[in-house]
Amino acid sequence: MQPVVHVAPESDRAIEDAVLAAGGRIGPLEEAAALIWLDSNPESFPDALPDGLRWVQLPSAGVETWLDRIDRERLWTSAAGAYGLPVAEHALTLMLAGARRLADCARAATWTAPPVRPLDGATVLIIGAGGIGRALMRLLAPLDVRVVAVTRRGRDGTLPAERMPEALPEADHVVIAAPATAGTRHLIGASELDAMRDDAWLVNVARGSLVDTDALVDALARGAIGGAALDVTDPEPLPDGHPLWSEPRALITPHVANPAATLRRYLARHVQENVARFAKGEALLSPIDPEAGY
Amino acid sequence: MQPVVHVAPESDRAIEDAVLAAGGRIGPLEEAAALIWLDSNPESFPDALPDGLRWVQLPSAGVETWLDRIDRERLWTSAAGAYGLPVAEHALTLMLAGARRLADCARAATWTAPPVRPLDGATVLIIGAGGIGRALMRLLAPLDVRVVAVTRRGRDGTLPAERMPEALPEADHVVIAAPATAGTRHLIGASELDAMRDDAWLVNVARGSLVDTDALVDALARGAIGGAALDVTDPEPLPDGHPLWSEPRALITPHVANPAATLRRYLARHVQENVARFAKGEALLSPIDPEAGY
Repeated sequence: MQPVVHVAPESDRAIEDAVLAAGGRIGPLEEAAALIWLDSNPESFPDALPDGLRWVQLPSAGVETWLDRIDRERLWTSAAGAYGLPVAEHALTLMLAGARRLADCARAATWTAPPVRPLDGATVLIIGAGGIGRALMRLLAPLDVRVVAVTRRGRDGTLPAERMPEALPEADHVVIAAPATAGTRHLIGASELDAMRDDAWLVNVARGSLVDTDALVDALARGAIGGAALDVTDPEPLPDGHPLWSEPRALITPHVANPAATLRRYLARHVQENVARFAKGEALLSPIDPEAGY
Repeated sequence: MQPVVHVAPESDRAIEDAVLAAGGRIGPLEEAAALIWLDSNPESFPDALPDGLRWVQLPSAGVETWLDRIDRERLWTSAAGAYGLPVAEHALTLMLAGARRLADCARAATWTAPPVRPLDGATVLIIGAGGIGRALMRLLAPLDVRVVAVTRRGRDGTLPAERMPEALPEADHVVIAAPATAGTRHLIGASELDAMRDDAWLVNVARGSLVDTDALVDALARGAIGGAALDVTDPEPLPDGHPLWSEPRALITPHVANPAATLRRYLARHVQENVARFAKGEALLSPIDPEAGY
């Protein structure tokens, strides 16, 4: 089967190439079996969809703003997992920056060696084993790194969330890569920070709400942990004058783990895989369950 | 054979354990068949060595300051390759720091996104395919990175040095991991910097002399390249007030790629392998060729 796929609201070369490479054909919405929607804002989405349309692919990993648009007439998929690799690469960057004291070096104007250590040989605690966490494990594989992963229920050889306290004191790096839910709010607070080693680094590439910012500011000021490298903050954007901006143990990157310049490149791979599966009648990646909210 | 090995100028537990694990015996210099020398400064090295001494292991990867000490009476080996992994890890750190604009972020006090891009998907030119270059290729393997390696003679699928000019314009990152010799001095000068893309990063984890510093300062000021992340400089240490300290496109780490805290850990592995080979009469790792200078 060569499904007709409509790409909207604008055309995009990389996405259309992915559709063609997967065996699809580009066509108008009225004839389409599938719609690849590229705007993360639901407001421009069509009010009515043709009856023949059997699948809608959305461009975002999180779909909390889409839930009242999603009908039961057809399958809807998100981009969950599509951006795991670039976000994991940013997590690796922040871990290496901590181990190798890059923020200290970037701020220095004189030749003084900070206490650098390799990531090789370290113990890394990854909170969350979804697309980001699994991609990060692949990036760490060439190093002699002991990885401990924590998930809510502790499936597939991971540690269940309630046993996180025993893993915290062993970690050289604690990496947050779990979704933001009511259950993960302030997952890292004062007691978790105090359980960490005083030379350990906290890395957050998930959502700012998973960390209690006031507790973190206090832990950094006391030297309770080695440092924090954060791509996401709470509040976000971090306001000018916030104590984290002037904290020497903190490194802030402004929510750039999934770079804007390459969003479509990674989405295109996800689209290609899903169009190929759709053409073969196979189960698609990242189906949305509107009841669950993702 | 259980060779007598002398460890000097001081004793070291990790190194001596490595000697024993490889089947050697620790003994005085007069009785030793092998000398493991742990001080990277040649000044404290003995003026005369016993005739029975058949092998000297030096602690540094680069041996340019040792060349007039090295005699033809016995085999001398360097630690080239011993620190390949930690130095390659630092090179990866500096490449990621360039791609992800960490220096800009570390110096910022406000939430403004710099033009971040992933390392995934990039073309990386590695100059030198010794222990560092090969370890870097292993670290890059989980990413979709196109690696082009340049070596003097272009062996083993690498590009010979005279063809480097064709590779420079394609690279997102140019990583220097080649030994400092008369032939590699100012390997990267004005014309090489001009051949690079204006968004490409230069990373140096080898020796400062491989880069023409004045040409680099000029290229950075003109925006001829995206940036430079340097663990080694010329002069070194980089003096206070040097223009590289205030260049926003530059990130300097003070020769910490091979961290002092873990030097002996990596050297011990190298010593264990070489003592085991020596005991079996096999060819040792990293023999020094005084003519070649490494």
